[in-house]
Amino acid sequence: MRAACFQGEALAPLALNRLTTQGEDETPLERLIRLIEQTWPKQGQVAGIGVTAPGPINPYEGIVIDAPNIPGWENLPLRQLLEDHFHVRVAAGNDANLAALGEWRFGAGQGFHHMIYLTISTGIGGGVIVNDQLLLGSQGLAAELGHITVVPDGPLCGCGQRGHLEAIASGPSIVRWVEEEINNGVPSRLAEKMPLTAKDVSEAAQQGDTLSQAALARAGTFIGVAIADYLHIFNPSAVIIGGGVSQSGPVLMKPLRTALREHVMSPKFLDHLTIAPAALGDSVGLMGALALVRDLAAS
Amino acid sequence: MRAACFQGEALAPLALNRLTTQGEDETPLERLIRLIEQTWPKQGQVAGIGVTAPGPINPYEGIVIDAPNIPGWENLPLRQLLEDHFHVRVAAGNDANLAALGEWRFGAGQGFHHMIYLTISTGIGGGVIVNDQLLLGSQGLAAELGHITVVPDGPLCGCGQRGHLEAIASGPSIVRWVEEEINNGVPSRLAEKMPLTAKDVSEAAQQGDTLSQAALARAGTFIGVAIADYLHIFNPSAVIIGGGVSQSGPVLMKPLRTALREHVMSPKFLDHLTIAPAALGDSVGLMGALALVRDLAAS
Repeated sequence: MRAACFQGEALAPLALNRLTTQGEDETPLERLIRLIEQTWPKQGQVAGIGVTAPGPINPYEGIVIDAPNIPGWENLPLRQLLEDHFHVRVAAGNDANLAALGEWRFGAGQGFHHMIYLTISTGIGGGVIVNDQLLLGSQGLAAELGHITVVPDGPLCGCGQRGHLEAIASGPSIVRWVEEEINNGVPSRLAEKMPLTAKDVSEAAQQGDTLSQAALARAGTFIGVAIADYLHIFNPSAVIIGGGVSQSGPVLMKPLRTALREHVMSPKFLDHLTIAPAALGDSVGLMGALALVRDLAAS
Repeated sequence: MRAACFQGEALAPLALNRLTTQGEDETPLERLIRLIEQTWPKQGQVAGIGVTAPGPINPYEGIVIDAPNIPGWENLPLRQLLEDHFHVRVAAGNDANLAALGEWRFGAGQGFHHMIYLTISTGIGGGVIVNDQLLLGSQGLAAELGHITVVPDGPLCGCGQRGHLEAIASGPSIVRWVEEEINNGVPSRLAEKMPLTAKDVSEAAQQGDTLSQAALARAGTFIGVAIADYLHIFNPSAVIIGGGVSQSGPVLMKPLRTALREHVMSPKFLDHLTIAPAALGDSVGLMGALALVRDLAAS
């Protein structure tokens, strides 16, 4: 979970904080409030607070539905609690959704009316701009783009289901596949290095390791097929791809683009389509929260 | 392709026409115009004309991008041509998209802010309402919900790709699977009746034919998995299912609901979710065109 205080006319984020809400002598909420207080500026007005979380949040109400790593945070009215304490506007949302909003307002998605954002990292998250609006759905749970079935009865996904894109193409899923292949006797320079990280696989692929290249090509192919699905579903003008795994370069992106071209039902879906890497860094979700706070201020 | 003239204060559809735009002595456009003239009311004002087509139409501009069965209709500015001829408002769109709009405004989807419409017939089409707006995408090609990959390298789809939902669960795809199984020696009361129709399979299933029941269960299961995907993507409050195949009853719908429950990543996506059959009949697409004409009149 991360939080920022936004200050001044430009509402630029003043301070960013990655919050590990674990402490012995205080509740997670007390710790969150204390950490926000530590980032509070000495001078000037704070215009708002933004909070992003990896789990499900109802962004309409700012209610944390479930925070698997924080005991007791179920249906927690976080926005109301923070607004009551700090007396400024608070925007809270799912980090991938807000990252999409951030890239659209301030990053690689600027100017596109229909945009898909995909982040490929320890999980696969997404966010969608439909007609200049963030897609949220009836309870704010929409755009779980990593959780479509791409291989029926395929590998187990972090969500408990099987064969989802995330279970095939996220960092840990790529690592799992490489380790399985090594255990099956496939040669790789990574054999001596286990347990592996996604970065190990990416680096070995750059250095010519055939197994690592195959692993990233496999992931890229499935991501490309899923993006073809998303083109058919959303007909966007831009697809923005972020997250650590996406930085593996051509070894991932080339098979991705090939699969996308091969699986799209009509070349019309590729007309005027921009595919670009995310432009903002690690704070992209908070930039989206900033956009939300700005909207709240304007409304 | 179908067309209607809309008349009067309520803008009720006055006359519906299924247009087979083939004729020897006239161009397809001349024939379309003549058929609309035949439905033109003797009395009163016509408020607008609605046109729906199975192929890709840019609904923003009313341009027919491609009409596979009508030679020469590529990038045809149909709306402009009809407006110039008849001097009334014209709304034109993809039939599944407009059917979604029709069900949302006048049918089973009334009152839902986030709705998915799926029609399972000779093809599988879709339409989506996001936040009270019809999802169209950058070129109006969005919501091709039958064209997501559910079986990698699976059966050939009408669109030329492989393994799409339509290639598994549309009427002709169900028939193809039954005929293949019969040719492989699987017993069925339909063995004597080939070639088959989807209706044959549906009726045989009602009458206890095990192969036909398996075929519809297989289709229902894949539709259920795809709907789980769509819940994760759109988090809708309603899923409306229409089309001839959907009228097969529990033999299709029970496996569909089971697969949906089993494949959804969190029961939250099923909270307050309505799954209902389409309420409007064969003219649902034109009812959507009526809604569009009404919007044009109000704007």
